[in-house]
Amino acid sequence: MKAEIITIGDEILIGQTIDTNSAWIANQLNLIGIDITKITSISDKKEEIIKALNNAKQIVDLVLITGGLGPTDDDITKKTLAEYFNTKLVQNTEVLHHIEQFVIKRKALMNERNIRQADVPENCTIIHNEIGTAPGMWFNQHGKTIISMPGVPFEMKRMMENSIIPELEKKRDSVHIIHKVILTQGWPESKLAEYLEEWEGQLPKVISLAYLPSPGIIKLRLTAKGENKAQLEELIDQETKKLEKIIPQLICGYDAEKLEEIIGNLLKERKENLSTAESCTGGNIAHLITSVPGSSDYFLGGTVAYDNSIKQNILRVTKSNIDNYGAVSKHVVEEMAVGVRELFKTDYAVATSGIAGPTGGTEDKPVGLTWIAVCSASQVISRKFVFGDHRGRNIQRASVTALNMLRKLILDQEM
Amino acid sequence: MKAEIITIGDEILIGQTIDTNSAWIANQLNLIGIDITKITSISDKKEEIIKALNNAKQIVDLVLITGGLGPTDDDITKKTLAEYFNTKLVQNTEVLHHIEQFVIKRKALMNERNIRQADVPENCTIIHNEIGTAPGMWFNQHGKTIISMPGVPFEMKRMMENSIIPELEKKRDSVHIIHKVILTQGWPESKLAEYLEEWEGQLPKVISLAYLPSPGIIKLRLTAKGENKAQLEELIDQETKKLEKIIPQLICGYDAEKLEEIIGNLLKERKENLSTAESCTGGNIAHLITSVPGSSDYFLGGTVAYDNSIKQNILRVTKSNIDNYGAVSKHVVEEMAVGVRELFKTDYAVATSGIAGPTGGTEDKPVGLTWIAVCSASQVISRKFVFGDHRGRNIQRASVTALNMLRKLILDQEM
Repeated sequence: MKAEIITIGDEILIGQTIDTNSAWIANQLNLIGIDITKITSISDKKEEIIKALNNAKQIVDLVLITGGLGPTDDDITKKTLAEYFNTKLVQNTEVLHHIEQFVIKRKALMNERNIRQADVPENCTIIHNEIGTAPGMWFNQHGKTIISMPGVPFEMKRMMENSIIPELEKKRDSVHIIHKVILTQGWPESKLAEYLEEWEGQLPKVISLAYLPSPGIIKLRLTAKGENKAQLEELIDQETKKLEKIIPQLICGYDAEKLEEIIGNLLKERKENLSTAESCTGGNIAHLITSVPGSSDYFLGGTVAYDNSIKQNILRVTKSNIDNYGAVSKHVVEEMAVGVRELFKTDYAVATSGIAGPTGGTEDKPVGLTWIAVCSASQVISRKFVFGDHRGRNIQRASVTALNMLRKLILDQEM
Repeated sequence: MKAEIITIGDEILIGQTIDTNSAWIANQLNLIGIDITKITSISDKKEEIIKALNNAKQIVDLVLITGGLGPTDDDITKKTLAEYFNTKLVQNTEVLHHIEQFVIKRKALMNERNIRQADVPENCTIIHNEIGTAPGMWFNQHGKTIISMPGVPFEMKRMMENSIIPELEKKRDSVHIIHKVILTQGWPESKLAEYLEEWEGQLPKVISLAYLPSPGIIKLRLTAKGENKAQLEELIDQETKKLEKIIPQLICGYDAEKLEEIIGNLLKERKENLSTAESCTGGNIAHLITSVPGSSDYFLGGTVAYDNSIKQNILRVTKSNIDNYGAVSKHVVEEMAVGVRELFKTDYAVATSGIAGPTGGTEDKPVGLTWIAVCSASQVISRKFVFGDHRGRNIQRASVTALNMLRKLILDQEM
């Protein structure tokens, strides 16, 4: 099946918002065998929306629209779709009830605009918006499917995952597409690609490989396409096992797993817990860990020790070590990890100290230099890294690298 | 002048790459009064490129293309453009010389692919690629301008800044476009829109308004278009001032400013500093603050007090308050703020305690309930909020709301 994504909103065309929705949608549809042939961003203008829809319908079977469903006057997607599909807007009582509940929960009052959000085109199927007030809309016409979703990423993603993808999966044709994602941590893409060249060369024809790089993690995605599902699964399994023999030290997870989830599951299984002491990552490791629901079961807390005074006074890092070796050093990062573990009385701790940049580097200690330590009751392990010169990226790479060191340390301990 | 951006590359259509180039280009062109009417992402296929060019040329005067100029076989933009403009590729000695210098600098050897990069369509003007090997191309035909650039963001940006924008500025017509963005915090979009209806109704015709919502912040964007730049600026200024009188309590910043940057600037100006004590936001406030370069000047550090033991043992929250009122309460969040401020010896502190969800709520204390406190030497202010039931969004809304309370507290103190 072929699809086009249309994003509606002036904020994209004036460069105020980067369109992240399209990449996410494209990726999700790809996983269920739907190809995106085009992504189009247009403004909140009726004639532009109609023109884009007409163009898309000539080429694809499925059109996914995001944006323009808000309660304000510049949001005209719903009105335009009703006109396009030759129908009128009618109040939907279920949607109205949901909006009322939503507004009450926020201790606000229903207003005219809220009520108008419950008006929907008469001939569409409503897609429930669990976490927002603007409903999604699903239209079928002459064998084509047109789906309209809010532009707010959270709301759009929830709708896709819970309602749209399950429906689309039922419609797709008999070709099976199977994906397996292998998460690697530690090597840059070019080094990894060179090392895996021979393995890649011998992949069966039905399997393709893609490298998906992000700061700190390179994902390898194997995709098998064909009619015999069991055979494809078997092939993917074989190739995954080969990879596990070639780069065992680099593999840190599979599929949609995140390192912070993997660590969470390990700790829950072992009934153990964790604390953090962060300098250069500035709270990002704690943020990643606590973004996982239920993390309060195993994460007691952490210290962001940005200033040296906090390293000394709270974490008990010795002044002489800071004076002799500097805050970004093996000695200090190890003391931070050990210090927070003792202070917070946890089984494990992780600590970071580095120069995130863009300034603050010296010849000896350049921007990107980062020390990371992890510790348990019996072990302290620290490593030095030199990342790049982009602050946000350095913080992300240091965080992911620290989480992976922690994962290895936990796996290394006897249960 | 009207323009369209065409990005070429399968990596965008399969969701592997987020198209950040288009937003950057759109923003730059907007500043010199060029409107983007459409952004189109297509695959590396000859017929797709030609179709997209034909469509764009019917509507706009200027087409900017990125991508498909690399040295590998899937890069076909240059060949396609030569065909499209009915010309042939010829070797350009200047480009070849530049590529040679470039390759030598990297201690590599020239290969067949490098040499082919110096072949360019005979009838175009070459745009020098200072930091890469693929030259840009500028075509003029029947009053239309078509510009092709590499997809690598660094290379594209340098080309735009040094060569393309200066040229376009000479050509542009007399219409000016002026934007002003007003950041608001505290009210949902629908409430804000209703409250501002009257003001919106009286806006001069040359000014348009857009609402740009994100978790915790609603941006109002005013856009003025016309020939008289000074007059437009005056009008935008007048409307901004009116808004400042209508919703003074909601405005927290302007244009591309972020709350964490605004706070950083305030603290630097006052030579004051800050610490954090986070429960439900789990380190995200510290992460936002430390994402700003130079934040070590005013951010000493923070505590993520996820477990009650940390609240008691580190932040000195009294056990009786936790027992009597619960961890998510006015008493506890105020003690957290005061506790971390004293412990870290800072001028200000901010603290959060809430139920981020998706589980952990009770009838009395539902998911989304959040207490936030800010304090200085002379004041402690706390407020209760009920956000939604999405964990990630609750964390983000609580963080942004906390930062805004902090901003107000700082502004409230005498300098």
